[in-house]
Amino acid sequence: MSDILIIGTVAFDTIETPFGRVEKALGGSATYASFAASFFSRPALISVIGRDFPEEYIKLLKNRGINLQGLKTDDKTFHWEGFYEYDMNEAKTKKTELNSLENFKVKVPEEYKDLKYVFLANIDPEQQHETLKQMRKPEFVVLDTMNFWISHKKRQLMDVIKKADVLLLNDGEARQLFNTASLVKAANEALILGPKAIIIKKGEHGALLFTKNKHIENAWHASEQSTRSQDEHFRDARKSEECERVRNEAHSHLKDLRHFSAPGYPLENIKDPTGCGDSFGGAFIGYIAKTNDLSEQNFRRAIVYGSVVASHNAEDFGLNRLKTLKMGDIEKRYKEFQAIREF
Amino acid sequence: MSDILIIGTVAFDTIETPFGRVEKALGGSATYASFAASFFSRPALISVIGRDFPEEYIKLLKNRGINLQGLKTDDKTFHWEGFYEYDMNEAKTKKTELNSLENFKVKVPEEYKDLKYVFLANIDPEQQHETLKQMRKPEFVVLDTMNFWISHKKRQLMDVIKKADVLLLNDGEARQLFNTASLVKAANEALILGPKAIIIKKGEHGALLFTKNKHIENAWHASEQSTRSQDEHFRDARKSEECERVRNEAHSHLKDLRHFSAPGYPLENIKDPTGCGDSFGGAFIGYIAKTNDLSEQNFRRAIVYGSVVASHNAEDFGLNRLKTLKMGDIEKRYKEFQAIREF
Repeated sequence: MSDILIIGTVAFDTIETPFGRVEKALGGSATYASFAASFFSRPALISVIGRDFPEEYIKLLKNRGINLQGLKTDDKTFHWEGFYEYDMNEAKTKKTELNSLENFKVKVPEEYKDLKYVFLANIDPEQQHETLKQMRKPEFVVLDTMNFWISHKKRQLMDVIKKADVLLLNDGEARQLFNTASLVKAANEALILGPKAIIIKKGEHGALLFTKNKHIENAWHASEQSTRSQDEHFRDARKSEECERVRNEAHSHLKDLRHFSAPGYPLENIKDPTGCGDSFGGAFIGYIAKTNDLSEQNFRRAIVYGSVVASHNAEDFGLNRLKTLKMGDIEKRYKEFQAIREF
Repeated sequence: MSDILIIGTVAFDTIETPFGRVEKALGGSATYASFAASFFSRPALISVIGRDFPEEYIKLLKNRGINLQGLKTDDKTFHWEGFYEYDMNEAKTKKTELNSLENFKVKVPEEYKDLKYVFLANIDPEQQHETLKQMRKPEFVVLDTMNFWISHKKRQLMDVIKKADVLLLNDGEARQLFNTASLVKAANEALILGPKAIIIKKGEHGALLFTKNKHIENAWHASEQSTRSQDEHFRDARKSEECERVRNEAHSHLKDLRHFSAPGYPLENIKDPTGCGDSFGGAFIGYIAKTNDLSEQNFRRAIVYGSVVASHNAEDFGLNRLKTLKMGDIEKRYKEFQAIREF
């Protein structure tokens, strides 16, 4: 029995870093996310591959207990080609061949529809939205995205954010999406849209968690009320006087935002950061589903587990490290995360 | 009675940030460092000012209990003009008028010579070295520097590093000085040179502490022995076979480096980051001197106090925030630092 639905991409990745190169390795947001989640829970995947997708990769996913009922086959597999420069901070895209992803219509299998935990991993926000619509009663929705969707489908992305419980962004994306240099302001803006929490991933610098406070909660309720009576679409109403007042109210209490700062793990060698954000998200929701505890305190632990799995992921190309990773390695590094932040 | 000697610059700072501009504000590494240290201890300053230095600034320093016996007057005050762009990460220099700093000859006053705690704040490494030579028995030496000295006086800087107990660098400087993208490798290189600890300041991302382990200790002793018998200068001998072996030995144990990761404080608004590194260092050594405890555990607490004072410093232009800061504000934020890292 599965317990988390994960939608995202399954891809061939061709990656070059200062430490080497791999060709058509198994990649994609849903691949990394479900692989990482599988250490804690039983993910059910929704994605599309091509007829060129090797049996060996299918086996790899199946062996992790990942439910592939929702994995369609059509045309050729999505292929991403990119590289990292010396600082390894940002993937530069060389080529994107959408292939089967281009006409991918989401259809959630019947047996997935009652799942409680949903991870909308990085993919077109319209496909994320469509997935959510087909679910019967999702209780905990985590949403990830990337700069490409912020630039090209911001409105659609905003619509999905409003329906998410937890929004994942990296620091650059948070600044881009909310048009501010301050991560605290960006977090506040995100929370006003609806999510209970926003997690800002900062790569080697760790991750930040901001959660809703009373002021945002009040603001959000007031604005919801006023919006419903006038207009279905919150985004139009946001411009109204009431909503302006409500946002200012929340902004004037920025200092009260509840906040957690997870350390980064000091890696000697980062070989390939591809999939670190996805595996962070997968491990995060995997741990939440396993513990079935939606408290802020448990989010903190889940973030550290996410950081542990992501830091391992960066130590080798593609999925190589996650393939051999054991639960013992995860628990050992989790303890190191505790030790390095003690004072 | 003073308890910390601080050498560095006292300056007029003309600063522009996206949030405003100040002209000829009181600045300089020794100013920020001693101001910050004065919350915990009694600093004794060594620096030079010009005859244009206003009495009002002197009073400000005196009122903080800073010993100005070692503050010479000559010519005009050192003037730095710089600006920050939107991301606030790096000061860009527009103009540097060295003035009285150009011919500054360090002379440590008799009453400073027995001080146990020494902070070599950012200034020419030759002046840092000269200060150290004139001290009778410094027991704990903290060294700060900047990219300018790494580029222009690397050899002299290396000589001072060997004599320091704690080296402070920001992440960019650490990478520059040791020519590596990995902060762990840079830390290891720094520790092999002699210091007990290296602290890497990462601005809004917090700070890292790395301390010597047995492997580095052994490596360092072995190399010290072999150097002494052949050559007075360790830097020449480093190229010898023995030293190469010893460095490789230490590098093969990178994973064993003891490490602490202090969170950054999530500021809503960074108005002016000038002097944050200096006030971090000043508060760090100020707290160490106050507690008179050189354990790694106490370094961790001192780093958090450094981060607390530096984060306050960034909230207003120049010294404005530190001027009104109270010990209660410091303790309150220290507790917040504990809360935000708890999991």
